[in-house]
Amino acid sequence: MTRALRELGEDKLLAQVFPRLNRNARVVMGAGDDCAVVKFHGAKDWLLLKTDCVVEEIHFARETSARTVGWKAMMRALSDFAAMSGIPEFALITLAIAGKKKASWVDELYRGLNRAAARFDVAIVGGETSETVGPTVIVVSVAGGVERDRCVLRSGGKANDDLFVTGKLGGSIRGRHLNFFPRIDEARWLTANFKVHAMMDLSDGLGTDLPRLAGASKLGFAIDERALPLSRGCTIQQAISGGEDYELLFAVSPRERKRLQKRWQKKFPGLPLTRIGRLNQKSKIKNQELRSGYVHFR
Amino acid sequence: MTRALRELGEDKLLAQVFPRLNRNARVVMGAGDDCAVVKFHGAKDWLLLKTDCVVEEIHFARETSARTVGWKAMMRALSDFAAMSGIPEFALITLAIAGKKKASWVDELYRGLNRAAARFDVAIVGGETSETVGPTVIVVSVAGGVERDRCVLRSGGKANDDLFVTGKLGGSIRGRHLNFFPRIDEARWLTANFKVHAMMDLSDGLGTDLPRLAGASKLGFAIDERALPLSRGCTIQQAISGGEDYELLFAVSPRERKRLQKRWQKKFPGLPLTRIGRLNQKSKIKNQELRSGYVHFR
Repeated sequence: MTRALRELGEDKLLAQVFPRLNRNARVVMGAGDDCAVVKFHGAKDWLLLKTDCVVEEIHFARETSARTVGWKAMMRALSDFAAMSGIPEFALITLAIAGKKKASWVDELYRGLNRAAARFDVAIVGGETSETVGPTVIVVSVAGGVERDRCVLRSGGKANDDLFVTGKLGGSIRGRHLNFFPRIDEARWLTANFKVHAMMDLSDGLGTDLPRLAGASKLGFAIDERALPLSRGCTIQQAISGGEDYELLFAVSPRERKRLQKRWQKKFPGLPLTRIGRLNQKSKIKNQELRSGYVHFR
Repeated sequence: MTRALRELGEDKLLAQVFPRLNRNARVVMGAGDDCAVVKFHGAKDWLLLKTDCVVEEIHFARETSARTVGWKAMMRALSDFAAMSGIPEFALITLAIAGKKKASWVDELYRGLNRAAARFDVAIVGGETSETVGPTVIVVSVAGGVERDRCVLRSGGKANDDLFVTGKLGGSIRGRHLNFFPRIDEARWLTANFKVHAMMDLSDGLGTDLPRLAGASKLGFAIDERALPLSRGCTIQQAISGGEDYELLFAVSPRERKRLQKRWQKKFPGLPLTRIGRLNQKSKIKNQELRSGYVHFR
């Protein structure tokens, strides 16, 4: 623990910290999945909680329009609800920003946040603002719900499950990370019609995120790299390590394959659904092929 | 809106932004009170949501111990639950921190956060970490609950109500802001035994916060400055403008006064309860006497 954060890496750091955290009997799923899952005061559905942040000079450039930054900040957090097949409902905004910044910048930021929230009927119910002497930090915290039998964790994958991704991968280098749509409607449709064993959203790149899903399910995976749905002009390597795709990665039984592909195409004709491989018993060699995604602090 | 944030001030900025924010039918109380109050999926109690942040070089010095910073960051957010007579239950941590920082710093930070959370049986259910090139920003987002008939807003004050504060004011300049206890037990006891009309926690100083409570209740106030419970070595001016007291300020009918004072002393013998004045019909002259608390960006 005397090492610097960027040597240790975010995952290893949090793996050391999380097991010690205080829990209580109402926690269904604490840190480690896309959202936390908890029970609330007799409600039948589960309460989902998620927080996420975007930082100037890391997630957006100083010259990016404030409205675009707001859109992205909100949609990143909502994408984690898609990952659980959850419905986001309430958002809180926390802003650390330099006092010399223009009030109009914050006004525009909130326009972007609000437009993104309204798209999914999410109410922005609070905003905290603090001064900082450094770059702007925007944190979006969201609460929502999911039916107990439709909540999808990362850990439910089974050996031999098909692995699917929505949309195309690798587009973030061309700016798609600034104007994407979280796949909430798609995830809700999936769990209304199919038994989805495991799911997550691709925020750090397939090469980082797929090992997380497989690892949570205590499985390995095999991917056909030539099958990856590439964004126009992207290489396979970019699709694997790019990050910020915000597409869904999910595992379903191969028995569902045909029905899923057929009904998906009818329901979402404009959005590709691609089978990229499958989960299997742990095989260390295969897993290491994909260990090249973006990891914070590296 | 072309002005800089520090000229406009946080309250004015948010007053411009909040009315435009997206709402939905489940919002009981959006931005503007200590916590947001919402309905969740048939639960009888209300869901409370709050986010708060501490920023290096603003809320804590670089040399402050990480464990102390964690304690403070958690307790600040929990104090807003005290303000509503709510019970905090789940917390999410968001951390923006430079990659060159030691992993042990984050480890110690989480120890402080966790110790504070455990004190009130709050489960830390998630943590997001991002790199920044600037000062460390720690955001704590908390969800919890409150019975509908025990939720206390700022806006319920009535003309002629007594105004009380717990504890002593002005101690933050002597470091009390780093190791305080939010008044959750006290607030719960108050609403179990008395009709509290309006309540808030004193985070920005009486001089800033009391006008907020009175304003939300559409009332004025009269304070006897000589009655203020001063921390040892503090002047009246410091008690008014100091900020970060994290004591409760609340309004109850003067008919309750005697019973409240008597029972309080028995229940919390170590903690002073002081009647500092009363709410009254709006009187602009009186209100301006106290307009000197700490305001962000000023």
